[in-house]
Amino acid sequence: MHGAGDVRIETVPDAAINDSTDALIRVTHACICGSDLWPYALMQASDPARVMGHEAIGVVEDVGADVQTLVRGDLVVMPFAFSDGTCIFCGEGLQTSCLHGGFFGNPEVAGAQAEAVRVPQADGTLVKLPVREDDALMPSLLTLSDVMGTGHHAAVTARVREGGTVAVVGDGAVGLCGVVAAKRLGAEQIVIMGRHADRTTLARELGATDVVSERGEEAVERVRGLTGGLGVSSVLECVGTEQSIATAVAIARPGGAIGRVGVPHYDAIPSAQPTFYGNVTISGGPAPVRAYIEELLPDVLEGRLDPGRVFDRVIGLDDVPEGYRAMNDRESIKVLVTP
Amino acid sequence: MHGAGDVRIETVPDAAINDSTDALIRVTHACICGSDLWPYALMQASDPARVMGHEAIGVVEDVGADVQTLVRGDLVVMPFAFSDGTCIFCGEGLQTSCLHGGFFGNPEVAGAQAEAVRVPQADGTLVKLPVREDDALMPSLLTLSDVMGTGHHAAVTARVREGGTVAVVGDGAVGLCGVVAAKRLGAEQIVIMGRHADRTTLARELGATDVVSERGEEAVERVRGLTGGLGVSSVLECVGTEQSIATAVAIARPGGAIGRVGVPHYDAIPSAQPTFYGNVTISGGPAPVRAYIEELLPDVLEGRLDPGRVFDRVIGLDDVPEGYRAMNDRESIKVLVTP
Repeated sequence: MHGAGDVRIETVPDAAINDSTDALIRVTHACICGSDLWPYALMQASDPARVMGHEAIGVVEDVGADVQTLVRGDLVVMPFAFSDGTCIFCGEGLQTSCLHGGFFGNPEVAGAQAEAVRVPQADGTLVKLPVREDDALMPSLLTLSDVMGTGHHAAVTARVREGGTVAVVGDGAVGLCGVVAAKRLGAEQIVIMGRHADRTTLARELGATDVVSERGEEAVERVRGLTGGLGVSSVLECVGTEQSIATAVAIARPGGAIGRVGVPHYDAIPSAQPTFYGNVTISGGPAPVRAYIEELLPDVLEGRLDPGRVFDRVIGLDDVPEGYRAMNDRESIKVLVTP
Repeated sequence: MHGAGDVRIETVPDAAINDSTDALIRVTHACICGSDLWPYALMQASDPARVMGHEAIGVVEDVGADVQTLVRGDLVVMPFAFSDGTCIFCGEGLQTSCLHGGFFGNPEVAGAQAEAVRVPQADGTLVKLPVREDDALMPSLLTLSDVMGTGHHAAVTARVREGGTVAVVGDGAVGLCGVVAAKRLGAEQIVIMGRHADRTTLARELGATDVVSERGEEAVERVRGLTGGLGVSSVLECVGTEQSIATAVAIARPGGAIGRVGVPHYDAIPSAQPTFYGNVTISGGPAPVRAYIEELLPDVLEGRLDPGRVFDRVIGLDDVPEGYRAMNDRESIKVLVTP
């Protein structure tokens, strides 16, 4: 990506082992993330170009001298953040705060919308998959690198419980995975808030019980109307705008919780007094998907979860610029890339 | 209170039963709260005068026809919020959001810095005490009506855990009770942040392991220095100013939590992006002290907790104006009133 709206397919120097803890992965499956649309909208042409992409499944082609757990030929899923697996935060299951970790798809660490990707801290980061690269489960397994784990994080930090009431703000792939996660955790009522009929229809199939397509004050009134005037116990904030966080705090009921997973494009969390008087908890952040893979993988392998349904288009590398355009124009929910 | 700095002792019509669920209490012990200092600083002379006070122990003098659990002569502790004990929120232990509840010390419901107080929803609100009104435990029992329960709420919502690291922002009575609560919950390191030597000395006696008297960026640096650069797992925000909440979010470590109990005099919670990237949880609100009385009362009765040490002055009703002045000038930590 060279700037807003400017995605190009270019030949760059081959990815290679830099550090003894690296692995080199041949990417078999990657995708475009809703969060990639932020730089697609806002990146300055003067910013350094970035090899985008932070979600992947691939085959290990080479490992550094200190890599212990992986060998050439292993099929692995790559979380969107790399982590050493040994620091205090990794020990607590918060790998996105790893003391030696970081993120893919920036000027320092190239991304996975590519033929190959260098994975730092390979032992801590990568998770082996017990299937072949042509398995029908690939789309669902690929969501474990970000969107399914992120939707799950929203649900966990919003404290979704058996029998609870939930609203999901945003009908993108993360919001849809939030529906999947909320249903998995036993929520009784799941309100999806979004305006795209194709997405909210899919949300219903995935477990949403109600659709609110209004925005702002009208949306708040609708959610209150659906919940006996109280609001919901759990809000999954899957957008990250001023308006979406304002809606999230307005629809949380007393004692409720908000799980923020939309990358915030706002500087302060509004309504400090109403959230205080209502004992509303605001939580969330970048999902430690590395921790969640172990929890979610059996459900995907055994067919109980099918988050791969968020992919509605499969393209090759050459079509990635068109994939960005389609997602940005809301023609596509999420695009799978097979390099 | 007639306005900022204007507290008068006046003869008003006797408190009396209004509703069939009321109780009438002769106040034996009341006190002045740090939160009372907000109107003492800011109240407009044009605002309606208020009978202040929301913390009390007293003797039941009369009950309405529908009161089931109390009789004349019972000694009771009164939480700062009244609650019916039966609504959905009371059932969840969030009595401060009771659908039929409210607060004492405002133009609608008179307060307890008085000879007597009308208590709405008496069955749900009041808790009988198994001691006599001259018991030596009275100061500690009185803190269960607000400050000890509020300090405990800060600790609970900041997720204080066995072996955890804690910072308490504010050295007022609530902050000191926060130290007591954090120690009770097993915190290993408890940093008290305040500038008043008498209070921080008491904090050390109550369990604080470190004192930070700086403010702003220097305070943040000190706390980071005390915690290996990481910040603390739990922040008890016991002040409620723009500066105190900014400090609270700045000293929370990744994955940490902030328990807000200082009444917020700020409109938005700052640092929406750093708290997001660090997965910092912001929680808290008005403490459901009614729920906590049951948990904390045995520890007070059996001498394991002594939060009554926050009282450093005892006065009669006539000296209440002087009590406000002394607390406002930080001459006194917390004033006990014996009408």
